[in-house]
Amino acid sequence: MKFAGWGDPGKRFSLEGKPNLWSFIESVTGVADSTPTPPVDFDSITLSEPRIEETFLLALTKQLRHDQIASDRTTRLLHCYGKSYRDLLRAIAGKVERAPDLVLFPESQEEVVTIVTAAAASNVKLIPFGGGTNIVGGVEVTPTTRSTVATVSLRRMNRVLRIDESSLVATIEAGALGPELESDLNAAGYTLGHFPDSFEFSTLGGWLATRSAGMQSDRWGKIEDMVVSLTMVSPTGTLRTPRVPKTATGPDLNQVIVGSEGILGIITEATMRIHPLEGSEYRSLLVPDFASGVALIRRCLREDCLPSTMRLSCPEETQLGIAMKPRPSPGKAILQRLGKTWLRATKGIQMEKACAIIVGFEGSRKRIAEQRKRVLALTREHRGVDLGTSAGDRWFAGKYDYPYLRDTMMERGGMVDVTETSALWSEVLPLYESMKRTLHDQLREGDFPGYVGCHLSHSYASGACLYFTFAARREPGNELNQYLAVKRAAVETLLASGAALSHHHAIGYEHLPWIESAIGETGVRALKGLKEALDPDDLCNPGKLIPGRESSLDHFWPDPSSSATPDQEP
Amino acid sequence: MKFAGWGDPGKRFSLEGKPNLWSFIESVTGVADSTPTPPVDFDSITLSEPRIEETFLLALTKQLRHDQIASDRTTRLLHCYGKSYRDLLRAIAGKVERAPDLVLFPESQEEVVTIVTAAAASNVKLIPFGGGTNIVGGVEVTPTTRSTVATVSLRRMNRVLRIDESSLVATIEAGALGPELESDLNAAGYTLGHFPDSFEFSTLGGWLATRSAGMQSDRWGKIEDMVVSLTMVSPTGTLRTPRVPKTATGPDLNQVIVGSEGILGIITEATMRIHPLEGSEYRSLLVPDFASGVALIRRCLREDCLPSTMRLSCPEETQLGIAMKPRPSPGKAILQRLGKTWLRATKGIQMEKACAIIVGFEGSRKRIAEQRKRVLALTREHRGVDLGTSAGDRWFAGKYDYPYLRDTMMERGGMVDVTETSALWSEVLPLYESMKRTLHDQLREGDFPGYVGCHLSHSYASGACLYFTFAARREPGNELNQYLAVKRAAVETLLASGAALSHHHAIGYEHLPWIESAIGETGVRALKGLKEALDPDDLCNPGKLIPGRESSLDHFWPDPSSSATPDQEP
Repeated sequence: MKFAGWGDPGKRFSLEGKPNLWSFIESVTGVADSTPTPPVDFDSITLSEPRIEETFLLALTKQLRHDQIASDRTTRLLHCYGKSYRDLLRAIAGKVERAPDLVLFPESQEEVVTIVTAAAASNVKLIPFGGGTNIVGGVEVTPTTRSTVATVSLRRMNRVLRIDESSLVATIEAGALGPELESDLNAAGYTLGHFPDSFEFSTLGGWLATRSAGMQSDRWGKIEDMVVSLTMVSPTGTLRTPRVPKTATGPDLNQVIVGSEGILGIITEATMRIHPLEGSEYRSLLVPDFASGVALIRRCLREDCLPSTMRLSCPEETQLGIAMKPRPSPGKAILQRLGKTWLRATKGIQMEKACAIIVGFEGSRKRIAEQRKRVLALTREHRGVDLGTSAGDRWFAGKYDYPYLRDTMMERGGMVDVTETSALWSEVLPLYESMKRTLHDQLREGDFPGYVGCHLSHSYASGACLYFTFAARREPGNELNQYLAVKRAAVETLLASGAALSHHHAIGYEHLPWIESAIGETGVRALKGLKEALDPDDLCNPGKLIPGRESSLDHFWPDPSSSATPDQEP
Repeated sequence: MKFAGWGDPGKRFSLEGKPNLWSFIESVTGVADSTPTPPVDFDSITLSEPRIEETFLLALTKQLRHDQIASDRTTRLLHCYGKSYRDLLRAIAGKVERAPDLVLFPESQEEVVTIVTAAAASNVKLIPFGGGTNIVGGVEVTPTTRSTVATVSLRRMNRVLRIDESSLVATIEAGALGPELESDLNAAGYTLGHFPDSFEFSTLGGWLATRSAGMQSDRWGKIEDMVVSLTMVSPTGTLRTPRVPKTATGPDLNQVIVGSEGILGIITEATMRIHPLEGSEYRSLLVPDFASGVALIRRCLREDCLPSTMRLSCPEETQLGIAMKPRPSPGKAILQRLGKTWLRATKGIQMEKACAIIVGFEGSRKRIAEQRKRVLALTREHRGVDLGTSAGDRWFAGKYDYPYLRDTMMERGGMVDVTETSALWSEVLPLYESMKRTLHDQLREGDFPGYVGCHLSHSYASGACLYFTFAARREPGNELNQYLAVKRAAVETLLASGAALSHHHAIGYEHLPWIESAIGETGVRALKGLKEALDPDDLCNPGKLIPGRESSLDHFWPDPSSSATPDQEP
């Protein structure tokens, strides 16, 4: 992974063949097509010496090999941040206040137990680390942590341990990246069916710890819906939940571990539902407006024919998608203009209000054909048109590339981030409108309205997930406050409407100021009870998920120059 | 409800028109067609005076009406037991060691808060009570409880408060019985779709507290899968979970509340997914043996056409079902004999090994026809035959009557109980065999093998629920030990194979000796953490779900004459 950017160090977002993209971005955000400002040189970043608790290190060296214990500058830096906007701001500027003192690479369940036991004996804090793609501050060392901090990378525990074909479950180590586990499962004819945007660089353990959602979650559920059994190593013991389909043996401990964000222990292994590999087809549809798109999705739900993916973009996101298209040949350009005229004349679809929907079908050719037929019939009933597979295929091919575009925009002086939520269907359209208004109010600057894209990414019988992307010009010298004002307004708007603080990005450190508003004082009390029972000395990922004594917004991102430091003890 | 039996006081299991039933029962269990021994006369049962904490009563009388506070003998007795075999043994014998001192009838969320607050101030123990159908000792006063105990009946909180038609959710008070909430939802064109065997006499709050499953759970999920949001009043505060489809805001608090069996607080209200009312059709199929039935169900799962109900009975349960049929006309008898010959000759189905499957389809007429076509085609592939709707309709009409048959058998000197579990598909058949063997080994007496029926009641992609019914003659004077030996052998067999301690009956008091084997020491620690956080003074349903300092089997059902009493403090 890059230190100050997303993903593959050899890869950047390609602007080639997208002649209209930057003019679109500039017209709404003011972020100009300028020479990129590269991040601060990695080698010039200063990092204080690690604070290493000697008894801890001694205990480790007895049980782990030399190459499993790192305290070098590069490894520490590569494990100090996730990939949130705030992380990237700091990484680009080369500011690292606090990094883990050690990075450990266990290779088995037993070695994780060794590490946790040694940490408990020496009061060393532990931060579990998968792919490092977290965007809510879930893997950083919080500024007030004074003890030795060891980040525990699960990346060497990346095997598919067992496939039980008759039960359609697989037991997989937590550190397996998406492509690693899919490759092993595919070889046996199966898939997990979980493809989050971070798929290429994130791990099963990370997905579980944060309640991740993927592209095909409409069919297979979020990661929490795929769990059969989990193993988590806590300071007070190892929790292995029963390997059975369903139980009535008290509160669901799988659902206590899922979403625990490392604060209760380290997830080492999971038995997950898997599915036989199938074919797929991606198409795009166009509907007259967002409300028609919502109506179409709800209709598919009620008629029991919701495809595996049904992702509705708002008009602005639809325009961004169009702006990414290659320049058409002169003949094709004429056809496209005719097409637009036809859409307006016969369907009443005006391009500036039109919304694209990506639909993904899975199954045998016959099953896909049946699904397609039903969904396209309903699409016509809702005044939509089928644009075929080419835009669908283009979206599918580029679906993991958006974070690279963020890097490019940030290098050119842009602020770019996302915020997502879920709401009941009765709230979806009002929330869509109010979030759009709130974000535009925050981002508008002179001639530039700011970019506020939204897509409805996941649908349930009772409601949906709305995913907002926003972008504007960065205010140099005031980056964090500028961003925080936008984020705060967005979160307050969604909480005021009763929507979820997060649908699949989790809480971490950055959402901490609002967790009590989201789940209530008694809800936080329940989480504290779990923490106290499983990790009474607050060794595991301290300062995340559970608010400390000071968790007001003022303490959220403290001014580094201030001498008063907030207390993050839960 | 009856005190010493199931359900409607005016109703008994009808033996009329079932000429072969009792001879079948007697041939396997030895329980003879004798004159029933009625339970001890209700009026003769002695009950010690209630121990009433005066400050508590005073606090209540300020806020509740006179008719909401009961301490009379009848009300206390009617709330002292659930409906387990052990409960019925005690009720029939008129033995009540300890009943609640008070029974309270709150009519609103606020009144529940009043009760919980007053209890906290006076160290009064609270037992939430819905319909009282629990069969694991979940609503009784544990023998060592010395404080005042108030049972809180939720039965006056039985309204459907709101239906959000666009989100397909309804907010319902916890004390609504199945027929009450269905009647309100049906009037608006909806159904919850939850029909457990206890449906007529159990409540939404009870279903939630115990992770109940219903007849159509294959389609709509267990009760925990239908929850959108819950409200629970705990001694340390009221927990209201977000009213949204899905979240990533830490551990799932809905799944902490569901299954908490009253030990964390009192569930007062739930927002649940609902569905438009649809038509249905019940049929019965016959397959050559249990393994073919399992194969057929798994095939339906893989082909994505599992009906709403698909309930596979073992040969013994199938024989019991046949024994319940009315005497055929002479002509029909000939046809039935010919049918059996045909089954054997053309299908290779031998009646003594044959297994019945009840299938229930739901939807429009068209949808039902499509489902039927696919399922019957697969049935033929698995050497099964369609027996049509008459046996299906008969099963549907009598589906809530089995507990009444238990009463009749107990009156005639029978021991009858059930035990259920869930397991991965790879374990289902070995577990079926080992449980059958274990139970028969325990029940066999002279010429009588004992009755061990099993049905596969619910199916999941990864496995299934197996539900065992067992019966034999009661050993007078040794009833509890006789039963405990059977129950212990059954539970040890299923735990040894890694199956669930319970799939939908919960833990309560009777399963307590095995909860740590089922969820592990760290699992129990997590539950204790929740308890400590939400109910630190152990006011809520003490002695249930979480093992106390003494929870070994020896302390499970203590000899009442013994002076050493086990400690149930968690």
